[in-house]
Parts: sequence; structure tokens; C-alpha cells
Amino acid sequence: MLVYERAIRFEEVDAAAIVFFAYYAHYAHEAMEAFFAELDGGYPHLIVGRKIGLPAVHIEMNFKAPAKYGDLLRIETSTARLGNRSAVLRYKMYVAHRDGAEMPPGTSEVCELLHTVVTSDLTALASCEMPADVRAAFSSHLEERLP
Amino acid sequence: MLVYERAIRFEEVDAAAIVFFAYYAHYAHEAMEAFFAELDGGYPHLIVGRKIGLPAVHIEMNFKAPAKYGDLLRIETSTARLGNRSAVLRYKMYVAHRDGAEMPPGTSEVCELLHTVVTSDLTALASCEMPADVRAAFSSHLEERLP
Amino acid sequence: MLVYERAIRFEEVDAAAIVFFAYYAHYAHEAMEAFFAELDGGYPHLIVGRKIGLPAVHIEMNFKAPAKYGDLLRIETSTARLGNRSAVLRYKMYVAHRDGAEMPPGTSEVCELLHTVVTSDLTALASCEMPADVRAAFSSHLEERLP
Amino acid sequence: MLVYERAIRFEEVDAAAIVFFAYYAHYAHEAMEAFFAELDGGYPHLIVGRKIGLPAVHIEMNFKAPAKYGDLLRIETSTARLGNRSAVLRYKMYVAHRDGAEMPPGTSEVCELLHTVVTSDLTALASCEMPADVRAAFSSHLEERLP
Repeated sequence: MLVYERAIRFEEVDAAAIVFFAYYAHYAHEAMEAFFAELDGGYPHLIVGRKIGLPAVHIEMNFKAPAKYGDLLRIETSTARLGNRSAVLRYKMYVAHRDGAEMPPGTSEVCELLHTVVTSDLTALASCEMPADVRAAFSSHLEERLP
Repeated sequence: MLVYERAIRFEEVDAAAIVFFAYYAHYAHEAMEAFFAELDGGYPHLIVGRKIGLPAVHIEMNFKAPAKYGDLLRIETSTARLGNRSAVLRYKMYVAHRDGAEMPPGTSEVCELLHTVVTSDLTALASCEMPADVRAAFSSHLEERLP
Repeated sequence: MLVYERAIRFEEVDAAAIVFFAYYAHYAHEAMEAFFAELDGGYPHLIVGRKIGLPAVHIEMNFKAPAKYGDLLRIETSTARLGNRSAVLRYKMYVAHRDGAEMPPGTSEVCELLHTVVTSDLTALASCEMPADVRAAFSSHLEERLP
Repeated sequence: MLVYERAIRFEEVDAAAIVFFAYYAHYAHEAMEAFFAELDGGYPHLIVGRKIGLPAVHIEMNFKAPAKYGDLLRIETSTARLGNRSAVLRYKMYVAHRDGAEMPPGTSEVCELLHTVVTSDLTALASCEMPADVRAAFSSHLEERLP
């Protein structure tokens, strides 16, 4: 499980004064970029240099509570499933800090997001073999299963 | 079923040169604003004037094919389920026009998005009764069920 | 002068409940895409097909009054200066419609934006000759000068 | 002068594969939020708690070179002018890191942005006195003038 934290920004709330729901998908991608930081050259080099990407084929978002401007978001990323060419990332998003106070860990969940990606050749826009370093990153954060 | 069309914009593609997946959630909300255009004052007045909103509690997105800069997107919005305080909107998104050519209707689906919303009092940030005009909008686009 | 209208969207306001200032630059680009719609294949084909673009080298924005969610924005685009490889676009942005009422034309200006672009070869990322059709689009909306 | 660094994100490039120019205004605001981190409760508390904001009245952006996906952006923020109710922030934006290599400091400038803000009462949407702590933050990063 990898922890990534970032503050909610001024322009990420909507006319209802809460974080616009689509931004959670942006946050998930940010957390995924952090998840792959251990690759040589990181996710950018995978995309731009090696022309391999992980486009989403499926997204599921469950919203538990609204986040607000000024909140510090804590995102816990893990691999929920690792297949041959595909994988499912799970992002559990919490408010870690609000109004000057730390929130007790595990409380204040705002969103759980499941992100199914398929290893893809970006030139052909077709699925391809998962490179060993990408598989290793997924593997090192694989959720434990009860026997 | 309500049809809403909009062009993919210059800044909506990502470093893989296809529409960034999170934008489909933005497009869905745009289509929802069009869906509620028949309300008095539209969705903006519901939010700002009446302090009632329809925050998302669940999102599901299935990506079928990538969209690109220059594509014209066609979004067909319908009500998949209408509950007491909640509803599920279904958005079927197609490329209607690409590279100067019209795409045959029903082909070239890029994304199907399911959007579960709950009628909410934005002051209390709690669920509330669904106003009659909101229910009427959902009802008028309710998907037909086979007997 | 070309008129382009678009509604302010739900997620374009910030935590101060007014349109986030950076969005006016997004709106300007949208208006520029409309400005070049008369090109064969529009602005997308210029970029993707012909690999020619008009990156900004200078931007100036003057904010006159805030815009809000629900406002209909009217953008008047004209060519303030046409050079050899560069041009300056002027966007005058008004609220055309607010709270169910039309605003008298010429009142309610929210932003004036000046956008200096240079015709560029996107492969070399260097300036290049301005194609005849691009020049024609700029010319047809050139501001009149008093003698 | 305050230094703020952030990576260019996957979705911040456009169809020309360089950072979309409007994002520099978003980056400037991010840097401003960092600039005011020393306020009690930071910029969010100023906005949400004290109902005081610093809306932009003027923006000027000079683009020197394109930034790309994977670049690490370094933003140096200083106060170029401090008035009674207004101030001008200057953001000098550099690529600090590209393709695995650090860029020599002072080279690789991508954008200089000048941001004129006016202290405003967000309830009345009118200018107001500049609070002492806001003035102190501006003062502590005031550019030195030659005699």
C-alpha cells in the first residue's frame, strides 16, 4: 500500500462548495503516477519514452462523504487484482487534515475508487505484454488475501 | 433519452494523445446540466437559488474505445432507475463525427457511464425529498422496461 | 468579430464562488477554436493533420467583474494585430444572460484577454510561415483602425 | 522569494503535446497558496473562515519555452509591488528537472507571470483593507529595489 497526500486546491470545488466528483479520478491518476515513481524515469518515461501506457477500461467510484477546500487528502493505493495484461488499482481516499486538525486514521473516508487498467502499446493503441518493472510495482503493493 | 453534443477540446487529451479518462465524468455532468435545462432557471437555479443538488454517490465508467482531439462527442442521457430520493443516470457516449466524416449512429461508442445521484439539501449536506420538477425530468427520460 | 457563446459550468467556480480566473484562458482557447472553424478540418486538423499550431507567447487578462455559475458567457473575438508569423487575438467577454434575464449588449463585461500567438511547426517546435488559410481567418476579423 | 515545486501532470499537456498555456495560471495560484501557507489556517482559512480573498484584476504571462509531461516545475514567487489594497505577485517558472537530469539553476525558464490581486471582502465582492498578516506575507517576499 502506497500513501500519497495532496491538498484540495482552490479551483477543485464546484458551485455546491464541495470537491467536484470528477476530480477524484484526477486524484487517482496522480496517486498512480506516485505509485509508479519507482520505475526508471517514472510513469512519464513509460509513456513518452517507452510508448507504453495503462489506459483505464473500467472505473468505479463510491463516494462516502464530501471533501472541501483546505482539506488534506490522503490516498492509499494498492493492487486489488493483478492479471496477465490488466490490473485493478484500489484507491482509498481520506481527509487526513481538516480545519487545522488531524483526522484519526481510518475515519473520514471520502471516496473509494477502483481503476482497471490494461497495459497498452500507445502507438498501436492495443493491449500488450506487461513489462517486468510494471508488474513488479503492481506486485509489491498487492493486497493480501486471507487463506 | 436526451441527446447532447460537444466537441473534444484541445486541452482534454493527455500525454498519450487520447481523451483523459476523468473528463468523461466532466462530460457526464455537462450532459446532466443539459438534461435539467427544462427546470425553471435550469440546474444553476436549483443549486444556487433553491440550494438543492444531486451529488454523486456512485459512478461506474466502462471505456470502449479512445476519443481524440477533434472528435465530436454525442451523449445520450437516460434515467436507468428512479427511486425515492435517488436516481441513476446512464450516459452513452459516442464519437458522432471524426476526421470530417460522420460516424454511423450506434457505432463508435467510447464510454458508458452510470451516475447514481441523491437529492440533497446543500445547506445541511443531507439527502432530502426529490422536488416534483426534478422527478418529472427524470421520469420523462426513463428507460423503457420490457414487461 | 466572431461571437461565441457558452455557459459557465458547475465546476468552473472556485472556493470564492466565482469563476476561477484561469478558466478565462481556457475560454479564450475555445473561442479561438471557433474562430478557426472555417479552416478545412478546423483547428484540430491544423494541429493533428498539418502539425501546425499557434502556441501563445504572451497573454494579458484584465478582469472587470466576476462571472458566476449559471451565467451565459458571450465572447467577441477579433484580430487586434496581424504580423508576419504572429498575431494578437482580442477576446471581449461579457455575461450575456444571468438569473433568467438577458443583459443589455455591451454592459457586464467580465474580462478582456489579449492572446499573442506565433505560427509554429509542432514537430520542430519552431516558428514557421503562416499558412494562407490561417492568415485569411485572421484577416477576416481584423479590427478596423481609424485613419 | 518562495520556491514551490510540482511535477507536470499527465493531463496537463494538450493536443500539441506541450503544457496547455492556461495551466500556468493554475500553477501560479498553487504557488500563491504555498506563499500564504504561513497564515493561520493558510489561504483556505482566509477564504472560507475569514471570507477575505485576493481575486485577480490583471494577469500577464510571458511564455519563454514549452514545458512537457514529466518535467518538474520550479516556481519562484516574489512580491513585485505592494500597494494599499493591491499587490503584484511575480512567478518565475523554470523546468528544474527533465528526462532524469537536473537543469542548471536560472536556465530553462518556461513562463513569467505577473498577477495583480486586490484584497476583497468575498461577501460584498468589494475591495477591503489588507489584513496585517496578509501584508506581512507580501512584505517578507518583497523584491529588492536598487537605490
